[in-house]
Amino acid sequence: MSLTVVGSIAFDAVKTPFGEREKMLGGAAVHFSLAASFFTEVRPVGPVGDDFGAEQLGVLEARGVQTGDIERVPGGQSFFWRGRYEYDLNVAHTEETRLGVFGDFEPKLSTEAQAADTLFLANIQPELQRRVSAQCKVARFSALDSMNLWIDTARDSLLAAIAEVDCLLVNDAEIRQLTGESNLARAARAVMGYGPRAVVAKQGEYGGALFTADRFFALPGFPLENVRDPTGAGDSFAGGFLGYLDSHDGELDEGSLRRAMGYGTVLASFNVEEFGTERVARLTREEIDARFAALHEMTQFEPLPVR
Amino acid sequence: MSLTVVGSIAFDAVKTPFGEREKMLGGAAVHFSLAASFFTEVRPVGPVGDDFGAEQLGVLEARGVQTGDIERVPGGQSFFWRGRYEYDLNVAHTEETRLGVFGDFEPKLSTEAQAADTLFLANIQPELQRRVSAQCKVARFSALDSMNLWIDTARDSLLAAIAEVDCLLVNDAEIRQLTGESNLARAARAVMGYGPRAVVAKQGEYGGALFTADRFFALPGFPLENVRDPTGAGDSFAGGFLGYLDSHDGELDEGSLRRAMGYGTVLASFNVEEFGTERVARLTREEIDARFAALHEMTQFEPLPVR
Repeated sequence: MSLTVVGSIAFDAVKTPFGEREKMLGGAAVHFSLAASFFTEVRPVGPVGDDFGAEQLGVLEARGVQTGDIERVPGGQSFFWRGRYEYDLNVAHTEETRLGVFGDFEPKLSTEAQAADTLFLANIQPELQRRVSAQCKVARFSALDSMNLWIDTARDSLLAAIAEVDCLLVNDAEIRQLTGESNLARAARAVMGYGPRAVVAKQGEYGGALFTADRFFALPGFPLENVRDPTGAGDSFAGGFLGYLDSHDGELDEGSLRRAMGYGTVLASFNVEEFGTERVARLTREEIDARFAALHEMTQFEPLPVR
Repeated sequence: MSLTVVGSIAFDAVKTPFGEREKMLGGAAVHFSLAASFFTEVRPVGPVGDDFGAEQLGVLEARGVQTGDIERVPGGQSFFWRGRYEYDLNVAHTEETRLGVFGDFEPKLSTEAQAADTLFLANIQPELQRRVSAQCKVARFSALDSMNLWIDTARDSLLAAIAEVDCLLVNDAEIRQLTGESNLARAARAVMGYGPRAVVAKQGEYGGALFTADRFFALPGFPLENVRDPTGAGDSFAGGFLGYLDSHDGELDEGSLRRAMGYGTVLASFNVEEFGTERVARLTREEIDARFAALHEMTQFEPLPVR
């Protein structure tokens, strides 16, 4: 079992009503990798600049993340994102994005990264996603994230990238925008018409929903009294979701996809408790299992007959 | 077992992207009563005008609703609401509200209505809610709905009304507004500090959440490919929720509250499939039970250990 992810490896500057950080480790592939590291061997693919040093690599390596496919570009600067959140933590306000070394990124996967059993194409330019996808020919399960920018500016490439994966995993508003269908159930069905056999709709604090050919499943967000920074929550969700699936020996059936939704929900909930990677970097498997059990308890009810 | 509800008994004019109705039966107490009628004897309390005739009463009576506390005001006009929805069906745009006979309403409950085991104070002026509450002294469970208007204009009365009920059942944005707390888990805890032992947060298409002293439960909205008119969905939710609780012989513990959330979700889902009361008026108990079972299936997962 092994999991390859391509996506940003970055520095973030984030301000929320509960604090701020001027420069912290971030990026989709970083949040994803830390979350998935509790389940399997994970290998992030992506470029960093000279500013990305031993301290940042150390956070990943302390969790057993394989960093051999992180490409150091001499003289370059790492991807940088600056954003803020108001009291409605569901809405990120982007203030600055600097692509840095990501602007000229040409993915060349190592033999190990190409041999991955599971593949996650985090939110980057769809043509880059396709070039990575083309190098991972043996993955038994692949998923893709994207955003409104690519729906607007690279729709054809994005549809081609989606057609090649097993699962689209995006925010519910993006599923609606992509398909032009305001009803989410219809929109998810339209996405399955493009190719994927599963659609995961991320819904922020409301949790997430899973659509497959003839089934539906949903989980609420884990209720937290202290949420400090939602940055990376969606990628941590994807890391828990795909990390569990990669670790799962049996068939990737409805039951395992539902459990994967549970692990995604749990990892996302830890992510938002503190800034950036701070909470997940010192998380333990015991804490994950305890919260998974609590989430299970919070969603069960007995369908006893009335009278 | 018996259930009293006070709230609007009205005519609605509604336009959505899927059709429109110029004058149809509506009002919180009507939607609530039809939904609750599948579980128990329900008695709506409220005034109507001369325009409210045998046809409207017939819809209620066909479902066994007890109409003796619907007060006909000679020369008066029934409550009227005109609204529209855009593609985002979560947001109602009110275009006109005419209080009509509700402007001078002074509730005088019959002996039967006063003897109710369960009480629902639908969204009306908090002082009216309190006057009804004062007449229902034996109810074992009571719940209250409200809206932003009363939080803004009658906050003290509303807090007094909330202190007298077992359950606050409102939209999640209203829980935040009422408490001044943006985090929903904290906001719900603050509400329990006012008196209620349970808080139900209605979340539109995302479903609903139940907060009690030390427990949390949530259900997604039932996924529907055809939603035509959300008017009354929250009241149908309340009708299913309280109707089930009223019919329940045992203690109103966490298990029964969770099942009640399930019936609320199911009744709300039928409500939105067609305009106004059209769908619920011809619903059957068999359809409710089948959808309840489907909802149960959609929310369960097996917490098998990962290796």
